[in-house]
Amino acid sequence: MQLRFLGTSAGVPTRARNVSAVALTPEGQRRWMLIDCGEGTQHQLMLTPLSAARLEAVLVTHVHGDHCYGLPGLLASASMAGRRAALTVIGPKAVRDYLEAVRATTGLSLGFELNHVDAATLVDAALALPDVIVRAARLSHGVECYAYSFEERHVEAGLNVGKLRAEGVTPGPLWGRLQRGETVIDEQGRELHGVDYRLPSRAARRLVVAGDNDTPDLLAEFCEGADVLVHEATYTEAVIEQLGTDNGHSSAARTAAFAERAGLEHLVLTHFSPRYVDHPGAAHSIREIEAEARQHFGGTLMLAKDLAVLDLSRDHVLHQCE
Amino acid sequence: MQLRFLGTSAGVPTRARNVSAVALTPEGQRRWMLIDCGEGTQHQLMLTPLSAARLEAVLVTHVHGDHCYGLPGLLASASMAGRRAALTVIGPKAVRDYLEAVRATTGLSLGFELNHVDAATLVDAALALPDVIVRAARLSHGVECYAYSFEERHVEAGLNVGKLRAEGVTPGPLWGRLQRGETVIDEQGRELHGVDYRLPSRAARRLVVAGDNDTPDLLAEFCEGADVLVHEATYTEAVIEQLGTDNGHSSAARTAAFAERAGLEHLVLTHFSPRYVDHPGAAHSIREIEAEARQHFGGTLMLAKDLAVLDLSRDHVLHQCE
Repeated sequence: MQLRFLGTSAGVPTRARNVSAVALTPEGQRRWMLIDCGEGTQHQLMLTPLSAARLEAVLVTHVHGDHCYGLPGLLASASMAGRRAALTVIGPKAVRDYLEAVRATTGLSLGFELNHVDAATLVDAALALPDVIVRAARLSHGVECYAYSFEERHVEAGLNVGKLRAEGVTPGPLWGRLQRGETVIDEQGRELHGVDYRLPSRAARRLVVAGDNDTPDLLAEFCEGADVLVHEATYTEAVIEQLGTDNGHSSAARTAAFAERAGLEHLVLTHFSPRYVDHPGAAHSIREIEAEARQHFGGTLMLAKDLAVLDLSRDHVLHQCE
Repeated sequence: MQLRFLGTSAGVPTRARNVSAVALTPEGQRRWMLIDCGEGTQHQLMLTPLSAARLEAVLVTHVHGDHCYGLPGLLASASMAGRRAALTVIGPKAVRDYLEAVRATTGLSLGFELNHVDAATLVDAALALPDVIVRAARLSHGVECYAYSFEERHVEAGLNVGKLRAEGVTPGPLWGRLQRGETVIDEQGRELHGVDYRLPSRAARRLVVAGDNDTPDLLAEFCEGADVLVHEATYTEAVIEQLGTDNGHSSAARTAAFAERAGLEHLVLTHFSPRYVDHPGAAHSIREIEAEARQHFGGTLMLAKDLAVLDLSRDHVLHQCE
């Protein structure tokens, strides 16, 4: 399962980072999902292999402009490129209002349907998309805002070897057919059903991608068993204290300390204030975010970059691949 | 007076061309005006010396997404960067409705006022901005759509030398003071007022920038005396005929033939269908647009490119400067 970051800047774009968007591609699929869609997301997509024709769902964390102002243009371009398949749009109700208002005032006519799903309904009930099961959790950010969890639906089947041996089923090609789910007749004339001998070969992978949030602890239960958390770290503590406590965002320290308490293996920080830059002479460096987070989190820590691709392998290890 | 093209593609962005936007900078000013604001215009601005803090007015030709979906993000970023000065927004009434709908549904709060001007009111009455006089003309594009004319307000004063000589005013530093508009006492004790001896040193420069339009001849009167026309040439004739006659756009041939009939010195084509590209193996080349236009127009023909800067000099000659 791959995460491809399309924008990692908070509020406004910079020359190195666009505003928020991240693509999630299930293993072996050309279908993909988009989480947030800041202005210029369709421009970033031109630099990737992803096609808007294969976009399965858009999930918007909240209705602030740096997370959704790219959506009308992305939809318009997909339509002009000939898309006719319905698109699922998940988000707070305000996202639907926003899209409907833009369509009404600008005459935007799409060649496909939008299936709106109110994110609030996914807090207690999961939604099965073709490749993943999606759940939502409420965050704290002034406006209605969500984290989304993506749990892999299709785990390769393993075989219950102990049961086969106990029943005296002779090893051979027949075992492979049972693993594929077939019904077979064994040497002793017994009818055996694959479904009775298949086991998941491993745990399903699960990623959590959070929107803006000043209280990471809200995700304690939601992150149980997750492999990866992608969460904002807009500021360092020094800056967040200077700005005041009610700015709606988290710091590197707070996000990292939560991830440590939650026992997460992998933490990916994103949504950095544009004041943190990587060039000489800048007042603040992105390294400050990293250093502060490392003081609080002992797992694998990554700082998202635009166009970076992170792969979560079947053995639940996250690594950077491009 | 400089035109800086920020987007020259029709409908959807390409890797080489963004959607519509063009900046107009009066000579010697850091103030500037923006005509259209497709998605990603604020990203393009980061590649120029232009600052959103110095933006004097935005003029939207029509409310189609590729001409206005960058406006909410540009305004939001200007506000976050600390802009407090009011901004004039000129366009069809639908542009105001669009912005108000986006502000209402996404909680966009700006630190400055928007002074909306309905473009329809500028068809019969001009608006004086600090550097230019703006007028509008209606176009034909399915939705309400305009061309804007920008006439230089401040032409350097020349001196009515014939009058001075006729009145026996001795040449010297006193002439310079009259030219600057001062009131002076001459050798004969006469009180002379600069205003009585100043003349415009040359004709005011005037540019016309048009939105999408299938009927260039609508601009016949509006273009009288203009130095430059910037007009769409979305297609070549072969393609426009294949698409049908009611697509709302002009061809290279039609735009060029109009410019020839209007006696224009300079024609700048823009808003090219993304099918016209400059790489080997493409089905259509941008050179087809140029070749078709040249068959119909004998003046100075230019094809706009993203980030190109065109300068209209005081002697009314347009040249590319970057």
